[in-house]
Amino acid sequence: MTQINRDSLNREQNIQDRSNFLSHLAHAAKASVMPYFRNQIEIENKAPDSHMFDPVTLADKACETVLREAINSQYPADGILGEEYSQTDAHSPFTWVIDPIDGTRAFMSGLPTWGILIGLICEDTPQLGMVIQPFTGETYVGGMGKSALWHKENMTYLSTRACSELKKATLFTTDPSLFNEQQRQAFEKVETKVRLSRYGCDCYAYAMLASGYVDLVIEPDLKPYDILPIVPIIESAGGTVVTWDKEPLRLKGHNSVNVVAVGDKSLLEPVLNLLQG
Amino acid sequence: MTQINRDSLNREQNIQDRSNFLSHLAHAAKASVMPYFRNQIEIENKAPDSHMFDPVTLADKACETVLREAINSQYPADGILGEEYSQTDAHSPFTWVIDPIDGTRAFMSGLPTWGILIGLICEDTPQLGMVIQPFTGETYVGGMGKSALWHKENMTYLSTRACSELKKATLFTTDPSLFNEQQRQAFEKVETKVRLSRYGCDCYAYAMLASGYVDLVIEPDLKPYDILPIVPIIESAGGTVVTWDKEPLRLKGHNSVNVVAVGDKSLLEPVLNLLQG
Repeated sequence: MTQINRDSLNREQNIQDRSNFLSHLAHAAKASVMPYFRNQIEIENKAPDSHMFDPVTLADKACETVLREAINSQYPADGILGEEYSQTDAHSPFTWVIDPIDGTRAFMSGLPTWGILIGLICEDTPQLGMVIQPFTGETYVGGMGKSALWHKENMTYLSTRACSELKKATLFTTDPSLFNEQQRQAFEKVETKVRLSRYGCDCYAYAMLASGYVDLVIEPDLKPYDILPIVPIIESAGGTVVTWDKEPLRLKGHNSVNVVAVGDKSLLEPVLNLLQG
Repeated sequence: MTQINRDSLNREQNIQDRSNFLSHLAHAAKASVMPYFRNQIEIENKAPDSHMFDPVTLADKACETVLREAINSQYPADGILGEEYSQTDAHSPFTWVIDPIDGTRAFMSGLPTWGILIGLICEDTPQLGMVIQPFTGETYVGGMGKSALWHKENMTYLSTRACSELKKATLFTTDPSLFNEQQRQAFEKVETKVRLSRYGCDCYAYAMLASGYVDLVIEPDLKPYDILPIVPIIESAGGTVVTWDKEPLRLKGHNSVNVVAVGDKSLLEPVLNLLQG
């Protein structure tokens, strides 16, 4: 057996180990968050000087703390990049990427469309991803060529749906006010061509795309923890997710990027042409 | 006992009877809809000549049919006004108002923010209302001074929250593209003054308002079946819902109206002043 094959097998085994560990993380994350959901919670504004209200709650902080402790305890050499606390550098090829509550605005409004995002990066590439929605009892998980939804005790494999024409597509974005003027003009070029355009949903829109109910998600200025955990779920379900410049989503050098996800890959070129045109 | 007292007692009894019947309707409605949710369904456009895609599915039709049959069988003299089929005139003081799927666009996108709406009108006034979200297992029900959420087997009473300042309020509307230019300008006067404004959600936003997680919902051009079933849930939870001209929501003469719902009644005047100003 060559060295390269052995390294590659080791890598596979290391990812598989961490994949098994995801269900433990999911359990811990849900338990930390749910006491705060639909309960009176203190809400802090992370960006008091901006016109955008950017809330953070005790639930975000509690969840990220619990996940960091669990990861540190099991894989102390792995890096951690989370939304709420400073980065832990990696002394292994692996970095965990965490958004403890993606959709804090939905969370504080009682809606079931937020999610806990946990992703595993190997070197620079997203390998595993999970979106947990504890109120509905859904966990979307993807990587290593398979994506699945666990809904309570039932598991179903996910696949994106065929939709090769923009005029038949359903498009989602979280909030049109998150676009700057140039981004908004680009977005509207696509929006005017689709059958149905809807706002809201944060990570839940990507889960619906991986499940084959939505064809297109377009969002501006996503941070690594907003999108990297979602990449393996979409890709292993048959879709693709890239920047508006058609760059793949990687950890290094990723501060914030404009993202487009498609369920049917044949939609990508026409959408990118509109966004760039 | 005077005649007036006797009539009033009879009326109360008749409403109570129908209130008990609601759980039967909820059960029938859920069973008719859920086989279609997150399943491949045919989608028809009700307004092919409009720029707005107005979908209707077999699920909408199946649900309204089941509810009409159940009501006709139990209360044959009662009227029925539903979204999908023509009106059944009342030969009693009672009319049932049905939106089989409020939020068909959310339904067809796999989201859990649509609902089945069933309301009971006595003469002209909304008396009972129900919002059913079968995927999450939630049923919001209100009338006769009490509003409650049944979540699976658990019941909790609902009350709206205090929020007397617009700058602390969370505002919802389903879709900004539903406003015409004049309505949009009015809406934006309010939107620029609140802490958080969010899009999406249809009936679910009103359920969140009745539950005390959202302060304000503003929508244009609602039909009777879109809003009358929601009125008793909000009012019995402590909030209020009126037209932008501060008219109460009644069945007669209600083709389509602009609606504002507040959890804290002290928000009503400042909001109406902005909408009318």
